[in-house]
Amino acid sequence: MPNWLLPENIADVLPSEARKTEELRRLMLDNFRSYGYELVMPPLLEYVESLLTGAGQDTELRSFKLVDPMSGRMLGLRADMTTQVARIDAHLLNRDSVTRLCYAGSVLHTRPSGLHATREPLQIGAEIYGHAGLEADAEVQELALASLALAGFGADQVRLDLSHVGVLRALLAGDGAAQKDEAALYTLLRAKDTPGLDAISVSYAPATRAALLALPGLYGDIDVLARAREVLPALPGITRALAELAALAGSALGRADVAIDLADLRGYQYESGAMFALYVPGLPNAVARGGRYDHVGEAFGRARPATGFSLDLRELARLLPTAERKHSIRAPWGNAPELREKIAQLRKAGEVVIQSLPGHDNEQDEFECDRVLVLENSNWILKNLG
Amino acid sequence: MPNWLLPENIADVLPSEARKTEELRRLMLDNFRSYGYELVMPPLLEYVESLLTGAGQDTELRSFKLVDPMSGRMLGLRADMTTQVARIDAHLLNRDSVTRLCYAGSVLHTRPSGLHATREPLQIGAEIYGHAGLEADAEVQELALASLALAGFGADQVRLDLSHVGVLRALLAGDGAAQKDEAALYTLLRAKDTPGLDAISVSYAPATRAALLALPGLYGDIDVLARAREVLPALPGITRALAELAALAGSALGRADVAIDLADLRGYQYESGAMFALYVPGLPNAVARGGRYDHVGEAFGRARPATGFSLDLRELARLLPTAERKHSIRAPWGNAPELREKIAQLRKAGEVVIQSLPGHDNEQDEFECDRVLVLENSNWILKNLG
Repeated sequence: MPNWLLPENIADVLPSEARKTEELRRLMLDNFRSYGYELVMPPLLEYVESLLTGAGQDTELRSFKLVDPMSGRMLGLRADMTTQVARIDAHLLNRDSVTRLCYAGSVLHTRPSGLHATREPLQIGAEIYGHAGLEADAEVQELALASLALAGFGADQVRLDLSHVGVLRALLAGDGAAQKDEAALYTLLRAKDTPGLDAISVSYAPATRAALLALPGLYGDIDVLARAREVLPALPGITRALAELAALAGSALGRADVAIDLADLRGYQYESGAMFALYVPGLPNAVARGGRYDHVGEAFGRARPATGFSLDLRELARLLPTAERKHSIRAPWGNAPELREKIAQLRKAGEVVIQSLPGHDNEQDEFECDRVLVLENSNWILKNLG
Repeated sequence: MPNWLLPENIADVLPSEARKTEELRRLMLDNFRSYGYELVMPPLLEYVESLLTGAGQDTELRSFKLVDPMSGRMLGLRADMTTQVARIDAHLLNRDSVTRLCYAGSVLHTRPSGLHATREPLQIGAEIYGHAGLEADAEVQELALASLALAGFGADQVRLDLSHVGVLRALLAGDGAAQKDEAALYTLLRAKDTPGLDAISVSYAPATRAALLALPGLYGDIDVLARAREVLPALPGITRALAELAALAGSALGRADVAIDLADLRGYQYESGAMFALYVPGLPNAVARGGRYDHVGEAFGRARPATGFSLDLRELARLLPTAERKHSIRAPWGNAPELREKIAQLRKAGEVVIQSLPGHDNEQDEFECDRVLVLENSNWILKNLG
């Protein structure tokens, strides 16, 4: 095997895509900042105890592990940054008040999430700690939608899928038999496996059984919430969950096509309230995911209300059209102070000036030299090229 | 051990330092771009064969290795990005002309380079491929000096140490006995160990011996080059090396305090021409290093002239004063369209507007709310605080 081949689902990002990725990264981080989110940079490597505590089995399976030669202990490469940021909120900042944090960095997965998915996503996201109210969820959802708008997706191209773990939690809390099957029910609901649900629920209370069988059908536009209120039992947890979804759907009006999917429980293991997923054309899987996960900090001894979202910038950048080449200036090599001064001025003014190295042409993906710097009557002036 | 402790020499970057790091990253990448450097993003993980080929033993020892569950093969976590970028030039871009590439990303080290050094530097750098002439070295040196200027270091605070592997290479090429001791000589010269050099060189040609014993003393300001021309044999390789150093020293005039150290051979294993190191107050080790390494691409079957530099943004950001807090605006929570519109306008105009979540104060390191948005006579207006 040639030694320049890369591992499966690992790739270099070449100039034009790297530029798009970098531009999106800046736009999104700047937008987070304009809302008052503070940037943090957690490390790529942590002790597995700290990295994987409370992270759920999915993350554990996706994390590369290796031995630290300095301590002899097991380290994990981060597969997700959410628990790292929760750790920072809990122990490093240790504030009592509301804290808004954002981040952008690579994560690594032992296996890709899909056939063509990268094992090195570039995760960017934002989190609010310390506020249990729906306002925080609404702000996070707004940021996620704004991030896709910054990437050029119009409101008519974005679908927002809303769900809520409170529905299933409330159903199970009132039914001991169903409670015991929690993990199996979670899998069956995610697969919308109605025959499976029918078989597993024969011994449950009739109301629980009917509700579980109804959940896979509670999928569609916002009217699903009205149907759910009729079909599902009026438990306080369910009523609250449906009201929260109605409010979040309302705050997304005009920014996305809103859909409700009460059986979509991806993230059920660590989420604790409303959850959302964003979809755009060209990508079958969700491009961004978010939701409430109030107990993540518990593992670090300090549970705080928490809600946030994240997306893979690398995947998103791939969906966008190739960036236009930047019009640039070609300049000769030389040490003449006037030439150097002129070039420095042009660069300061935002121009790209590429000095030709003697005997060579330049060749770039990103830059297109449409002007050249030439000496005329002792002055360096710009001339248009061809 | 509490599960929020991090491994030794691994740390989170908290808001104010993360902000400085991010700002420096952008300034440097934008400056590279203004010279026509194209951004690339190589992966964190590669097969060890590809990552470590031609990288030298230092890099091999510093690289974490782990097994890829998808292929069963050994992977390495990058400890340096230079060979990765050389691979991209050689195989992905595969151009015949001059190529300028830049990059910024985390690298990981099994052991820190010093007691307080991080094991996760944030490496940023720029490389020119395809031009063997000194013009490329001069441009890279200029970019390295400009990067420190962007970080706020004045010309009087920066020391540029110049060296050249051509001197030792030329000495050894003419002396078979000395040639055999290459590795030992390299270590003795780096340590400026004159007694050791005296002992090892008894069987060498007298001219070689005299030159080797002179090298540790050839350290100081630019006048060292004149002394070197007198003391060292006039071999073509030595004459050329000294002329190159004189030219590079000249092009740094007024931008740094220039020093010559002909025994500084750090990087001798992979460098092939002039080398430089930059020093700033507050940091005993070099803050940036660069030089020519024409044979790095050989490992990928395509040797191209190459020269470049890199530095650790994380270490550099730590040296800088804390960024001033950004003056910001506090706004109440609310869904009134006029309020939302006003907030959106302010954010678009570059303001940070932080909405207070009901019942909570905000607390930030980075932002200081000096104005508040209030409703007066049905208009949302800004009022100064305190």
